[in-house]
Amino acid sequence: MSGKLDEALKARAAKVIPGGMYGHQSVAILPPHAPQFFVRAKGAYLWDADGNRYIDFMCGYGPNLFGYCHPEVDAAYAKQMAEIDAATGPTPRMVELAEAFTGMVSHADWAMFCKNGTDASSMALLTARAYKGRKKVLMASGAYHGAAPWCTPIPAGTVEDDRAHFIYYQYNDVKSLEEAADKAGDDLAAIFASPFKHDVFVDQELPDPAYARRARELCDEKDALLLVDDIRAGLRIERDCSWTHLGVQPDLSTWGKAIANGHPISALLGNDRAREAASKIYVTGSFWFAGAAMAASLETLRLIRETDYLERTVALGDRLREGLASIAKSCGLDLSQTGPSQMPLIMIMDGEGHCDFKRSSAFADGMIAGGAYFHPFHNMFIGAAMTEADIDRTLEIANDVSAKLSSRVSV
Amino acid sequence: MSGKLDEALKARAAKVIPGGMYGHQSVAILPPHAPQFFVRAKGAYLWDADGNRYIDFMCGYGPNLFGYCHPEVDAAYAKQMAEIDAATGPTPRMVELAEAFTGMVSHADWAMFCKNGTDASSMALLTARAYKGRKKVLMASGAYHGAAPWCTPIPAGTVEDDRAHFIYYQYNDVKSLEEAADKAGDDLAAIFASPFKHDVFVDQELPDPAYARRARELCDEKDALLLVDDIRAGLRIERDCSWTHLGVQPDLSTWGKAIANGHPISALLGNDRAREAASKIYVTGSFWFAGAAMAASLETLRLIRETDYLERTVALGDRLREGLASIAKSCGLDLSQTGPSQMPLIMIMDGEGHCDFKRSSAFADGMIAGGAYFHPFHNMFIGAAMTEADIDRTLEIANDVSAKLSSRVSV
Repeated sequence: MSGKLDEALKARAAKVIPGGMYGHQSVAILPPHAPQFFVRAKGAYLWDADGNRYIDFMCGYGPNLFGYCHPEVDAAYAKQMAEIDAATGPTPRMVELAEAFTGMVSHADWAMFCKNGTDASSMALLTARAYKGRKKVLMASGAYHGAAPWCTPIPAGTVEDDRAHFIYYQYNDVKSLEEAADKAGDDLAAIFASPFKHDVFVDQELPDPAYARRARELCDEKDALLLVDDIRAGLRIERDCSWTHLGVQPDLSTWGKAIANGHPISALLGNDRAREAASKIYVTGSFWFAGAAMAASLETLRLIRETDYLERTVALGDRLREGLASIAKSCGLDLSQTGPSQMPLIMIMDGEGHCDFKRSSAFADGMIAGGAYFHPFHNMFIGAAMTEADIDRTLEIANDVSAKLSSRVSV
Repeated sequence: MSGKLDEALKARAAKVIPGGMYGHQSVAILPPHAPQFFVRAKGAYLWDADGNRYIDFMCGYGPNLFGYCHPEVDAAYAKQMAEIDAATGPTPRMVELAEAFTGMVSHADWAMFCKNGTDASSMALLTARAYKGRKKVLMASGAYHGAAPWCTPIPAGTVEDDRAHFIYYQYNDVKSLEEAADKAGDDLAAIFASPFKHDVFVDQELPDPAYARRARELCDEKDALLLVDDIRAGLRIERDCSWTHLGVQPDLSTWGKAIANGHPISALLGNDRAREAASKIYVTGSFWFAGAAMAASLETLRLIRETDYLERTVALGDRLREGLASIAKSCGLDLSQTGPSQMPLIMIMDGEGHCDFKRSSAFADGMIAGGAYFHPFHNMFIGAAMTEADIDRTLEIANDVSAKLSSRVSV
């Protein structure tokens, strides 16, 4: 049970918001100690409505990379907001930001900005189909690319026609990818791929280089476009598109979440091959050209270039991973820790390779009650504002929770 | 030709943004004096990159209602941003804002918040189809409901399947609406309607009450949902949904643009009939739960309730309309002024009831060159920060432009 003030807010919300809350920030299926509402955020910490502080391992589900209320990023936002934000045309910040992104991301020759990750995915879909007028798009089964009618993971309100031309393959499975490409025949518009497998409820998987290379080859053979959906992982794996270390460059990449450290902006980047197609589509939004979030993104990209944030989040993630593995071993817990250590998915398993939802939930619940906001089935995020002391405190909480959990016959 | 600094920015943009710009804020088909980039906004005024000042009759294509950089609204944004904005859960502002909207909009029992107008439209589509599991949606031909694959006005990159179950009718035409409803048979999910006809390139039309009432009746007869798309017109016609003065209440209404005076937020509102359907759909966005834009919207709604902004924008719009009509008459210009006077569409016509695109463009070009930002084929907006002096100065500019335009044999 979350606190009294949180419960009071939830009761009010139930009256004026369908289901009390919606989307990925609804706590409906989260453990009982997960609060629904927060009233303060600073650096690596969040405070709920009842005043409880958490070391936040969700980082806003991704946007918080350098710490909440970052002084330099927020000052850039505020300065631009005082001059001009959403207006009848864009500001010079838009040109500067497109230049900054294309200067940083190897495959990118151009950029288009939007607000939601889903906007960027939808623009990628339109661009891919406009490229040669083809329809078929390959996507990994279970991958999340947004919440529009064509991609939302829950089918309520969608119609079959919304996904008439999608063909699904198994992530990291070259044969499955090739079979899907065969099915598309000469109507292949694009292959969509997450940079690594970061689906909910199942272990994460790093990309097999052979799979990534084959996706590139198939797109080249068939003159289709390759998209890497870097909305969730972008800037957390590399200071470039997240497949660069594999030697694989896509034609399109989508970005969002952390690119302005929490301010609302997302982007579609592309190469010259895809430029003409991107110039043909009609996409827009009331606030897409607003300057303040772009100024914040410019400042975020400066921090990306000039700080060791990436190396620090990896080191902190490794420290957490090693500490948790040691605790799980000593407590006899079947703990699964997958994906990049700075974007870990941490679940209690059932001994047969599947998530034990009840025990994962109990583990996360204990962590939240102890002051470390953990998620039972979604990948988490290490923030650059976290310290070794935060990780060590988290491990202390984990030690207590694990001891209690392992002593129970069932939960 | 816009100024030197604007041209230099456009040259840089051409390298790193497809087509140099995209969406509704591209000046590609606007008159030559329309600048692409702006560097300052305050109250009713905008300044372009070359330092030219404009009385801005586009109001950011809608978001600017109370004036750019409004001190109270922006202070509310900044205060919330310093406490908590986008985080791992929403803030209490979300509950307060849902309460404020449902308290203000007669038909609304609940609210869901998002970022783009298109998000709200897409959520309305999903909710309508989730309501009874039906597919067909009626829309007015030529109406703008957003720029996602299912609704973008330019087909590049879309597939026929995206609109497989839409049936189009003529706005204000009861017979056409009834025929469309007949076509839907027992598979009617919803009727979508703009509060008035505000399509580009053609005269605006106020809603015929008989048409609005018939839309409501058809939805009642067939147990379908009626949507009023108030994204563009919301809060500019009434302090309520824009069909309230007709005595017609929809089940769903979509909002965006001006609801936070320029800060990025949009909304779907609905009644209890649609609540369960809305709770079934999965829609979300990285920044949808962020508190700062909600705090700005709360402050904007306070100004809506407590000021005479609406009466003032109507009076200023009437002053502009009457002044322009008088000028057009004395110059012999076939000037069309349609729609509500606070959201006027102003075009030069060809004498046969159609927009003369060249002369409309020349008229808007002269207005822009003279310091009043006019649009040649999209409705404009009167802002509450405008004064009678701004309107009178605009009429002086219009007088000069009209005199020159009427003296030319052709343009």
